Amino acid sequence: MNVVKAIFEPQAVVLIGSSKIREKVGMASPLLFKNVISNMQELFRGKTYVLDIDGKTGFNKLSEFPKVPELAVIMLPPKQSIEQTEKHAKKGVKAFVIITGGFKDEQRQKLLKLKAKYGIRILGPNTIMGVINTANGLNTTFEREVKPKEGNIAVISQSGGVGACLLDWACFYNIGISKFAFVGDKIDIDDVDLLRYYGNDENTKVVCLYIEGIRNGRRFIEEARKIVHKKPVLALKGGITQESAKRAKSHTASIAGSDEIFDAALKKAGIMRVSDVEELMNTAIAFSKQPPMHGDNVAIVSNVGGPAILAADAVARNNLKLAALSESVKRKIESLYPGVDASNPIDMIADARAERYSKVLDLVLADKNVDGVLIINMLKSCFFEPEDAEVIERVAAKYPDKPVVDVPAGGQDFALVYKVLGNTNVPLYNLPEKAVKALKFLRIYSKILQKMLTISSRTTEFIG
Amino acid sequence: MNVVKAIFEPQAVVLIGSSKIREKVGMASPLLFKNVISNMQELFRGKTYVLDIDGKTGFNKLSEFPKVPELAVIMLPPKQSIEQTEKHAKKGVKAFVIITGGFKDEQRQKLLKLKAKYGIRILGPNTIMGVINTANGLNTTFEREVKPKEGNIAVISQSGGVGACLLDWACFYNIGISKFAFVGDKIDIDDVDLLRYYGNDENTKVVCLYIEGIRNGRRFIEEARKIVHKKPVLALKGGITQESAKRAKSHTASIAGSDEIFDAALKKAGIMRVSDVEELMNTAIAFSKQPPMHGDNVAIVSNVGGPAILAADAVARNNLKLAALSESVKRKIESLYPGVDASNPIDMIADARAERYSKVLDLVLADKNVDGVLIINMLKSCFFEPEDAEVIERVAAKYPDKPVVDVPAGGQDFALVYKVLGNTNVPLYNLPEKAVKALKFLRIYSKILQKMLTISSRTTEFIG
Repeated sequence: MNVVKAIFEPQAVVLIGSSKIREKVGMASPLLFKNVISNMQELFRGKTYVLDIDGKTGFNKLSEFPKVPELAVIMLPPKQSIEQTEKHAKKGVKAFVIITGGFKDEQRQKLLKLKAKYGIRILGPNTIMGVINTANGLNTTFEREVKPKEGNIAVISQSGGVGACLLDWACFYNIGISKFAFVGDKIDIDDVDLLRYYGNDENTKVVCLYIEGIRNGRRFIEEARKIVHKKPVLALKGGITQESAKRAKSHTASIAGSDEIFDAALKKAGIMRVSDVEELMNTAIAFSKQPPMHGDNVAIVSNVGGPAILAADAVARNNLKLAALSESVKRKIESLYPGVDASNPIDMIADARAERYSKVLDLVLADKNVDGVLIINMLKSCFFEPEDAEVIERVAAKYPDKPVVDVPAGGQDFALVYKVLGNTNVPLYNLPEKAVKALKFLRIYSKILQKMLTISSRTTEFIG
Repeated sequence: MNVVKAIFEPQAVVLIGSSKIREKVGMASPLLFKNVISNMQELFRGKTYVLDIDGKTGFNKLSEFPKVPELAVIMLPPKQSIEQTEKHAKKGVKAFVIITGGFKDEQRQKLLKLKAKYGIRILGPNTIMGVINTANGLNTTFEREVKPKEGNIAVISQSGGVGACLLDWACFYNIGISKFAFVGDKIDIDDVDLLRYYGNDENTKVVCLYIEGIRNGRRFIEEARKIVHKKPVLALKGGITQESAKRAKSHTASIAGSDEIFDAALKKAGIMRVSDVEELMNTAIAFSKQPPMHGDNVAIVSNVGGPAILAADAVARNNLKLAALSESVKRKIESLYPGVDASNPIDMIADARAERYSKVLDLVLADKNVDGVLIINMLKSCFFEPEDAEVIERVAAKYPDKPVVDVPAGGQDFALVYKVLGNTNVPLYNLPEKAVKALKFLRIYSKILQKMLTISSRTTEFIG
């Protein structure tokens, strides 16, 4: 039995906490316990049992449960967490998520002994917010409003703070999440176990990591490569400098290693490294909605001049190329719309609306010289209306092998177009530079896959 | 008389348009005209006269105006724009903003002849949205909802599209603006004229440029240096690659030159170059609210570990240093709050609230080893409440020579703390990396000023 699976896909869960114990920092508190219970009862589509070790209501003993749950979520101080883990392991519970922190080394060792003795698996301790699976409503977070919408982006975070930030970001910006795991001290279940599970998860299309250090580098690289074959993996690394690496070590008890070694390891694994939380989420959105980009050539289709120039600059800065459009395509566009200069970046002029966007986008996507398209549609000082954006989704869908990203540049402009396209497969960015970075990663992943295929075919030849 | 001043500070303005002429792209249309009239009548605190060249209502002839306005804003096709410019120049109007575009070279020459003949000054043509002065309500934009709030950030944009994006950004994110000018074809009034005016404008603390090319590089550098002495100037440059530079040339008829030459010119002028619209606005906010940073040493004060590590990484990446706190300060913090490790980055632990933030921030800002402070206050998985953030403003105000920036990292967390601190002098960023970049520019400007002082004292010595 795959116990890691039980962490995310249990039929029944027992939430173990106390209505009395209130720790200063370790996170055990009656309020936290109550919030997790409320979240689970509201969202989880399996059975939720509650065990209050100091309470008189609910079930107080496991024997009273109608069936043995596969997963126990523990929100108690170290001593009581260990006691409850043993108690429930004995009764047949196989998977444990320990939310609370503050465990000493010897206490961690005790948990590992229980693992060996009962064959259980443990996520944590110190996972802070635990796990989320939007497919079945499992949500062990103790914040009442942290409810990401269902989607295909999976996250693993080694830091409670960065994980909380990512989750807050995803909820606020309405980004669809499949799974979320805070790994905490990772005494047992680690990034590799979770990567492997995410790799096989049908609901996950792209995996995001926040990582401060790796225990077994070789194993990590080998396992990650297998996942990367199937789906893109993105990583944000914390602790690049000596000082912050030292802090990272004390923070999650991990060995950070030098940043160069880490960078090389990620490259070898085929994992793409991003530079901040926003880039991580922006890139994940691109992968969740669009195909990899199979060449360097980007066409820019815009209703304004200046932002298109900034987009072209970003294309050059990110090692991509401005596509040289076929002469026939250029001629067609210019004959359809006199006054439009169809040299890439294409400035369709401020009066472009749905019809012009639709025709020009269709012509450009059909051009064999084009590998991906960046669209800019501004509202201010243009004739474009938010609902005109609908055609972008329609035309983009005709070309499933070429990525299309859209930039309603600015603040309110972005918000208005988001209302129309936000829930479609067209990724939206509020500035051209962010959209180009997303295309860059779509291109890099295509190269990674290509390289892996070449190597594996060579290996086959060799073996054959 | 300073005619450029009349562009921004007229007592009376005449809006000249037509209720009949409807151009396809040039932007002259009855709706545009109507919108500018509505905006001005709603916002402008001087006199607004309207002259509809095809209308029967309002004033039809200048002689009917109670007084001659200093400024005429023209929204007509080229031919009629020239006619109206001449007519009004004859009557004594000195400053002209020409909104509409589509002027041919010979038409631009005609305008320049009128300039020579009547001593008028012209902003435009092709300024698209013209000018904004939040101090007197002057607002010639033709969008009904583009009303930035009063503040001390001034903008000059060479592109209508990028200017519209900046303006949309400022309005949506509630960023305080003093002046805004779209320069368009800049046949007469150019960046240098505007820079000089902004340099003397009491309501302006920082100047932002979007620039594609410069006519007279030497003059620009000389004038800019004079302004930079008084206030920071930031520039976003469009057209860095050959292809996009070519497009920029056709876009606003400017000579872009190579990016390297441009970069060197900006450095010589003491202008700080940013990489996108968001960085431009984020940096401007820092300068509008905080002092330059007079050393490299940044202290990080946080209630979470991971994001503080990311902040420390960004400090290293941006050529700043993690401040080595004085031993006495460290000891004091650690004795006040047992369990807190006061090595920078300082993780004050998840239960830190207003009292701890206040005391630690005060101790750190008083430390001579610290030149600036980056605060992180997350809400998720912490005890911090948005109103706790008030102490940050209070303590920061005690140290007017050291910049303080705040990072409520994430989406909703940022929005909640923004409600408390958004209108104060504490700049807020949604990710640590963005806050560090802002500190970087506060540091660079301090170095620029230092260098200028050294040079000018040397010059004085030499002359003496």
